[in-house]
Amino acid sequence: MLLPMAPTDSLFLLGESREHPMHVGGLALFTPPDGTSAADLREMFETALTGDRVTPLFRKRARRSLTSLGQWGWDTLADHQVDLGHHVRRDALPRPGGTDELMALVSRLHGTLLDRSRPLWEMHLIEGLADGRYAVYTKIHHALADGASAMNLLAGSLSADPHRRHMPAPWQPQTHLTAVPTPHEPVQPMDSASGGGLSAALDLPGLALRAGRTVAGEVAGLLPAAINTLDRAARGTGGAVSLTAPHTVLNGSIGGARQVAARTFPLERIRLLAKHADATVNDIVLAMSAGTLRGYLHARNALPADPLIAMVPVSLRPTDTESGGSAAGGNRVGVLMCNLATHLPDPGHRLETVRDCMREGKAALREMSPAQVLAMSALGAAPLGMELLLGRRGPLRPPFNVVISNVAGPRTPLYWNGARLDALYPLSIPTTGQALNITCTSNDDQIAFGLTGCRSTLPDLNPMLDHLDTELDTLERAVGL
Amino acid sequence: MLLPMAPTDSLFLLGESREHPMHVGGLALFTPPDGTSAADLREMFETALTGDRVTPLFRKRARRSLTSLGQWGWDTLADHQVDLGHHVRRDALPRPGGTDELMALVSRLHGTLLDRSRPLWEMHLIEGLADGRYAVYTKIHHALADGASAMNLLAGSLSADPHRRHMPAPWQPQTHLTAVPTPHEPVQPMDSASGGGLSAALDLPGLALRAGRTVAGEVAGLLPAAINTLDRAARGTGGAVSLTAPHTVLNGSIGGARQVAARTFPLERIRLLAKHADATVNDIVLAMSAGTLRGYLHARNALPADPLIAMVPVSLRPTDTESGGSAAGGNRVGVLMCNLATHLPDPGHRLETVRDCMREGKAALREMSPAQVLAMSALGAAPLGMELLLGRRGPLRPPFNVVISNVAGPRTPLYWNGARLDALYPLSIPTTGQALNITCTSNDDQIAFGLTGCRSTLPDLNPMLDHLDTELDTLERAVGL
Repeated sequence: MLLPMAPTDSLFLLGESREHPMHVGGLALFTPPDGTSAADLREMFETALTGDRVTPLFRKRARRSLTSLGQWGWDTLADHQVDLGHHVRRDALPRPGGTDELMALVSRLHGTLLDRSRPLWEMHLIEGLADGRYAVYTKIHHALADGASAMNLLAGSLSADPHRRHMPAPWQPQTHLTAVPTPHEPVQPMDSASGGGLSAALDLPGLALRAGRTVAGEVAGLLPAAINTLDRAARGTGGAVSLTAPHTVLNGSIGGARQVAARTFPLERIRLLAKHADATVNDIVLAMSAGTLRGYLHARNALPADPLIAMVPVSLRPTDTESGGSAAGGNRVGVLMCNLATHLPDPGHRLETVRDCMREGKAALREMSPAQVLAMSALGAAPLGMELLLGRRGPLRPPFNVVISNVAGPRTPLYWNGARLDALYPLSIPTTGQALNITCTSNDDQIAFGLTGCRSTLPDLNPMLDHLDTELDTLERAVGL
Repeated sequence: MLLPMAPTDSLFLLGESREHPMHVGGLALFTPPDGTSAADLREMFETALTGDRVTPLFRKRARRSLTSLGQWGWDTLADHQVDLGHHVRRDALPRPGGTDELMALVSRLHGTLLDRSRPLWEMHLIEGLADGRYAVYTKIHHALADGASAMNLLAGSLSADPHRRHMPAPWQPQTHLTAVPTPHEPVQPMDSASGGGLSAALDLPGLALRAGRTVAGEVAGLLPAAINTLDRAARGTGGAVSLTAPHTVLNGSIGGARQVAARTFPLERIRLLAKHADATVNDIVLAMSAGTLRGYLHARNALPADPLIAMVPVSLRPTDTESGGSAAGGNRVGVLMCNLATHLPDPGHRLETVRDCMREGKAALREMSPAQVLAMSALGAAPLGMELLLGRRGPLRPPFNVVISNVAGPRTPLYWNGARLDALYPLSIPTTGQALNITCTSNDDQIAFGLTGCRSTLPDLNPMLDHLDTELDTLERAVGL
């Protein structure tokens, strides 16, 4: 039986093409428990592969037919109909098995389309890391799950207990015997009734696609707020809609190949820096990204005179802290356009601009009702949705230059059968006009940057990672650390 | 500047979808020269990657635009515009690095679409084979090159001289200092003026796509021949058009994932068998395939009562020999529908039927003019072209059940910088209604079977390889060897 698919979900199937794969991804790195090796971890996964149960989400297949009048719907397959040998794959790194080889492999895996005749996911078990770790790259179509749900799915298969064994693999039904305790919950699942939990931060395309409907219904009552926000944006002081983004190389058409890069930084370092600068962790992430984009574009003689504008999803809890969200009521998410001050050579000045812009923007959003916040955010994200769907550049001037998300991940160390999850890098969806996406997740002691770009636009992301390194140093010096 | 693309070539771009990738592939296995290892071979490839020259064919990019009125054309990029890091990739096998791991990797690589924003090829350098060899999987879009051209390209970068060094890599311009001597030439390049060289055997989709034009122009003069052939086909005695193929599991719709399998057999064994059976090497290939298909379908309770029909490209030289073709004039290629006699339990009877059917069919084709042969063959292949283009089943009854090609490869040992080419397996294009393709190539001392199938239809091809083994034994016993 074909169950109906949400129209926004089916848009990710309709809008997909070879140049615009519509799946999100995650790269997890595991350290095997003491006394064991990556080979032992691989064996545990292989044992799991002999099991015959598959979690319901991973048995859902997208289908449309003449009888469904061409509308996409969901089939749920029986366990035995899922060809696990297709979905769960063993990969290996060529020598020397370093980060370069890992990212080259993941870049390629992230750039190919899922097989639409099957449930829309793949999991790659990657061996051959010279440092003895084991990597798992997961790929899920956005029609099946947004980035946050995908990360939840993986995190939900982990345990805070390093001694727990006989745990099911991520694709298997979870027993939930010792689920992660509530205070350490990973990112919240999407709650569309309330307009998105914090997880919406990872669901910008979904937000954008909801824009049309929401805005149409609510725009009348929003006019005063909209005018205020547009006015703020015009003055470059932060708001949900941007009118001032310059054109950059990041905002053209894209090809079908992807380039991904990832790096972690100690959370403590960033927290200390934030404290000294009277800023949030999120502000530091933005300032690091700002300096990185400035440095990268400047080195290529491609830095525009006007500052780059980032689209930033923000949490709007009454007592705003820098990361994480609780499931408690009243949690709100909005989208802000942040002036990255890439025209300023001084890193301290850039940080101040980012901090003030985010502060003012959040204050402005906080004055609005939840419906207004959603509508304004959706309006800001709408051009992304249009380009994503149409696969081509809309306005000559991009609505913003880059999407930068910072999402709280699990706040406690997590394990799978004793193997510690060292990092979980989120990989996102570049689209026409948005060739680069920067998403960060923080866990108990570090913050992980995941960069996903179009390989034609950004043939090598490693210089960006180097810039991130440099920027953190520079910002520390700027505040006297 | 956009150069025009042949309409038949552009059809491979227009007809392509996620479920119907339109690229051909080849898997080459190299044994490093004495005293060296696969790592040394890898290093030679990496040295080649530092070069900045790319052979013109590999710089051609398919493009269409508003100014080309939506028609596909070819751009030729400059050397430096080709991102070799994208096209030439390093892969590794997970342990234990056996045939299973190699074929699993190649199956997956063969099932993903090329990036259309770049020249339409990839070359994968595969390390980690436990037997010390080195594998190279090449993937070329059919719009850029048919299977024969692709194999020529690779073979053309090899040398008959095991002592030659400093040879360019396959993607580099060839110096042709010591090209393969003429008598040992690999398969002939396509010669469309004469209706296809023997290489047309690897270009069935192209043949099918030319059908419409050719048949339209020539059908009037062909009526007597057509009637004769249709009549032969109805009697099941071989001809270019089949009316009698039963429906099998091989003839439904297909998914986007591929499964490939490969095995080699000593050419001497097959030659001896052919001699004792008064048959050709090609007849033995067909009889082995017939027994394999019977065994595979029978084990799955899916063997139809009527015999399966194979579409077989044949060489029609006056003195027909079992393999190879020369560039000499008068060489003709046709397509025959061969009764595989899968309803007969006795392998000897199956071989006799195949042999007689091929003999009669070739005799019938030989009575025709070259134009008639081409037109009849194209007519026979036309349904394949239609399904390939429309991506769906046409008639309920398939025109034939499987395509089986046997193409002469290089007849002398070939080397790349001293590394011997042990085998070159051709991988083809399954289409809707044709979920399995069997292509063989022979070299100096062995014949290589390459099976390319849809993974949904054929989740595991290994049983087919086992059947091929068994069938060769059984056929030898049947003729008293």
